[in-house]
Amino acid sequence: MTALDDHSARPGVTTGPIMGSSKVHTEVRDPASGHVLRVPQRRVGLTDGTHIDLYDTSGPYTDPSATVDPHSGLPGLREEWIAQRERNGRRQPGTGGAPAAGPTQSACAKAGVITPEMRFVAAREGVDPEFVRDEVAVGRAVIPANRRHPESEPMIIGKNFLVKVNANIGNSAVTSSVAEEVEKLVWATRWGADTVMDLSTGKRIHETRERILRNSPVPIGTVPVYQALEKVDGDPAELSWEVYRDTVIEQAEQGVDYMTVHAGVLLRYVPLTARRVTGIVSRGGSIMAAWCLAHHRESFLYTHFEELCEILRAYDITFSLGDGLRPGAIADANDEAQFAELRTLGELTHVARSYDVQVMVEGPGHVPLHKIAENVRLEEELCGEAPFYTLGPLATDIAPGYDHITSAIGAAQIAWHGTAMLCYVTPKEHLGLPNRDDVKTGVITYKLAAHSADLAKGHPRAQEWDDALSHARFGFRWQDQFHLALDPETAQAYHDETLPAEPAKTAHFCSMCGPKFCSMKITQDVRRFAEENGLSTVEAIDQGMREKSEEFADRGGRVYLPLAKD
Amino acid sequence: MTALDDHSARPGVTTGPIMGSSKVHTEVRDPASGHVLRVPQRRVGLTDGTHIDLYDTSGPYTDPSATVDPHSGLPGLREEWIAQRERNGRRQPGTGGAPAAGPTQSACAKAGVITPEMRFVAAREGVDPEFVRDEVAVGRAVIPANRRHPESEPMIIGKNFLVKVNANIGNSAVTSSVAEEVEKLVWATRWGADTVMDLSTGKRIHETRERILRNSPVPIGTVPVYQALEKVDGDPAELSWEVYRDTVIEQAEQGVDYMTVHAGVLLRYVPLTARRVTGIVSRGGSIMAAWCLAHHRESFLYTHFEELCEILRAYDITFSLGDGLRPGAIADANDEAQFAELRTLGELTHVARSYDVQVMVEGPGHVPLHKIAENVRLEEELCGEAPFYTLGPLATDIAPGYDHITSAIGAAQIAWHGTAMLCYVTPKEHLGLPNRDDVKTGVITYKLAAHSADLAKGHPRAQEWDDALSHARFGFRWQDQFHLALDPETAQAYHDETLPAEPAKTAHFCSMCGPKFCSMKITQDVRRFAEENGLSTVEAIDQGMREKSEEFADRGGRVYLPLAKD
Repeated sequence: MTALDDHSARPGVTTGPIMGSSKVHTEVRDPASGHVLRVPQRRVGLTDGTHIDLYDTSGPYTDPSATVDPHSGLPGLREEWIAQRERNGRRQPGTGGAPAAGPTQSACAKAGVITPEMRFVAAREGVDPEFVRDEVAVGRAVIPANRRHPESEPMIIGKNFLVKVNANIGNSAVTSSVAEEVEKLVWATRWGADTVMDLSTGKRIHETRERILRNSPVPIGTVPVYQALEKVDGDPAELSWEVYRDTVIEQAEQGVDYMTVHAGVLLRYVPLTARRVTGIVSRGGSIMAAWCLAHHRESFLYTHFEELCEILRAYDITFSLGDGLRPGAIADANDEAQFAELRTLGELTHVARSYDVQVMVEGPGHVPLHKIAENVRLEEELCGEAPFYTLGPLATDIAPGYDHITSAIGAAQIAWHGTAMLCYVTPKEHLGLPNRDDVKTGVITYKLAAHSADLAKGHPRAQEWDDALSHARFGFRWQDQFHLALDPETAQAYHDETLPAEPAKTAHFCSMCGPKFCSMKITQDVRRFAEENGLSTVEAIDQGMREKSEEFADRGGRVYLPLAKD
Repeated sequence: MTALDDHSARPGVTTGPIMGSSKVHTEVRDPASGHVLRVPQRRVGLTDGTHIDLYDTSGPYTDPSATVDPHSGLPGLREEWIAQRERNGRRQPGTGGAPAAGPTQSACAKAGVITPEMRFVAAREGVDPEFVRDEVAVGRAVIPANRRHPESEPMIIGKNFLVKVNANIGNSAVTSSVAEEVEKLVWATRWGADTVMDLSTGKRIHETRERILRNSPVPIGTVPVYQALEKVDGDPAELSWEVYRDTVIEQAEQGVDYMTVHAGVLLRYVPLTARRVTGIVSRGGSIMAAWCLAHHRESFLYTHFEELCEILRAYDITFSLGDGLRPGAIADANDEAQFAELRTLGELTHVARSYDVQVMVEGPGHVPLHKIAENVRLEEELCGEAPFYTLGPLATDIAPGYDHITSAIGAAQIAWHGTAMLCYVTPKEHLGLPNRDDVKTGVITYKLAAHSADLAKGHPRAQEWDDALSHARFGFRWQDQFHLALDPETAQAYHDETLPAEPAKTAHFCSMCGPKFCSMKITQDVRRFAEENGLSTVEAIDQGMREKSEEFADRGGRVYLPLAKD
């Protein structure tokens, strides 16, 4: 643990490797720039001498060889790449004319240039850099990477890559300090959050965000209208394009990588929510609806959208077009308000792309299972396959306290159908603010939902993880099972609750069947027979077994195993 | 709390209403027998004076007017119905010739007779009794109700009814007493378990099962081969049809309602598991595979299946044809071993039906999302739409400690496709034995998965529950939200963690947005405008809003709300 500051009462940030894992870096040379990219992986060493390398979001915090000091922040991994791109950019015309801004990832991709960021994510995902470039060029994937956030390790969001998970943090009214928010960031990325959104609405918003950005190895997203509303003392009618624009620039300068913009909440859509069960449930959506109603004018986010594109292009910030009219109840799913807004988001996606600005599109919310696929289909059709970024959706409304689960059910389903990033939901959803345990539970739950989708989509590296764990399970390699688990500490703690003694870690049984008999042992017997007789085909095994059945009976033929000593 | 026995150190059973609910009974007259059936419901009274009645599995334990004494057991609700049927049965030829046995639910249904049990479940599910009869007659639904278990409140399992949830309990080796198992039963049904399986393998199996049955308002399932194996000191090679048969009769006499029988594990299928990642993971399957290997003979469960049908018919016990070769890893899903066994289960389903014995078919296990639908399709095709009863399936192997969630993802999906009952999985799956909290977490998680499927299947009563909760949420009726939650206690506890003060229970905000602004308030403003102006259509609301937009701004137009006093 490294103390975040001198106030010992404040929490530090969590450092050190994840149980059973070590940090390794793959070095990849970027031929264009000459930079050597060090791509992090989480290596799980297994007791049989092999290992498996897993995608790693945790940054230097899990690297014992790294020096971590939240005061000075993380090293600027991308600093030189950005500087070089900006030098090149100044030499090239037609990059938007923003001062000192290089071309965006989108512009580079369209021009056929593979950036160091693209090469980095290609190595992380185990795909060809040219494939990454192509997906970014057509807008089917985004690399959220503000040129003012050089500390971030590049990552990609798109349906042809691993499904990503976002965790929301942020203080509100009175709770939580800056140090606590930095620790939440470190904590969430430790367990697998691919991006983090800072949704702070309370005091010290600017300072909180600054500390989060300087210490974040993952892209940071925000909803600028939250801070803009604070600037006008919380009265949405007092909002204006100017206040909003200045807030966006303030956040852009700090390095925010993607911004949620509820530009699809049009005046004429607000009445469509009037007969809903839960009306408008998006904070940003309700703020913009209130502004539209108060002024009876079209949303300034919509009317000034092209100016917004110019600002975001200058920093290479990615749009996350917010679904301000997302359904907040099963009854409201897939209704006219939701899909009317989605059509507008599709229109805006194409505008942003024409500015070489990267775009994601946000999605629901609360949707019953049979209406989920339609959301993906429509989003892809209307928004030109821009990465879909959904909140759950919750598959039912009746389980407050368990909404990480009701939403993981919907999230796995929607991710399988093509959603590129899932915004996590914690057990406290609808009820309260998540604490440290809730953040971890939310992230782990969403990682398993995302991984379930990766498996179903046939991502080349997904199943090797499941296979490694199941092989360990079948071989009674308990420590390997724990270390391969998404949450090794909890897996071991649960095991130890029933069988705490050390010999149980090597026992050829588990507490479910007890020491008396075990279903997996019999398969090992079948297999041993095959191997001892040099049999390799199913037929041969069958024949071998027939011959050996008496021998089998003689040699035990029982599932009893000796009791482990403890 | 009522003490289970005089040993004060032992736990009692949990009694008393679920927070915010009361027990009501609907009285339904059975015209054929003249009996008046008292069908239980859980009534949630709401602060707006309305109420909603929910399906209730908890039996007399949640009824303050009932006297509960685990020593004497529950009253024999069905005693007279069974006696009358048996008297009628003796007068009719062709009911199998079993002594004192009346016709089975299946035989009655085929003969066009609506039993009191059918009428009871029709009232519980809100469907026509004739529909229930028809579903039972064709075998698409089962009513597991041993004539020796009159204490049970009839329930139905079939894809055209509410999706059901089973909870496993049972002692193993050394842990847990008889009293603890009865409390687990009461605890699991309190939170919504529709059936309970007693998987005890340790000491006092017979006594444990007797106490469970006499105190159970839900059908009890078992896996008789577990006890049979205990009788031969755990050596599967020593098993025989005779030992097994006597065990089945012993359990049948006690009143077991359905029995898992792994009669599809044929000798020739065992080698198909040899190259699997986790081989055979079903305990019953591994025992039978060991027997087949040791003797190199076909499984006695298969060769004696018709005799088994005769025994089960005599008690009206329902078969749960076990999937002994279910996949235990993602890598093994939908393989040759699994589907070969399923074909045999289909064959046996039709044999059992020819004996008027009701049949369910068990399913996996570990299956990635994209292979789930195929399981349902094949089961329905091969087993004549016999109710499918699956364990999860887990959608990934990598999250031990969270397998209630990995499996709820698969369970919701497979139930939506037509699985009739889901066997719960607790957080301790693969790691240890579930404790009281794990049982509750497992049941609640599976209830929300089952309900998600009910919603997606369009069950007529499913969405009214979601709507009631979401209306309460939108109206800031916090107590109603808690009371309508699947787990009211946890919902309230989570809320109180952030906002413990009593005024927060009536506050028009929640801790997510804090007291400063709230997304749902704006919709209420939109609506108030509509109502005050007598507007009822979207167009009219739109028009009204245009006219009133200035008034809106005057009257606040802000999402700020006053701070609650605390």
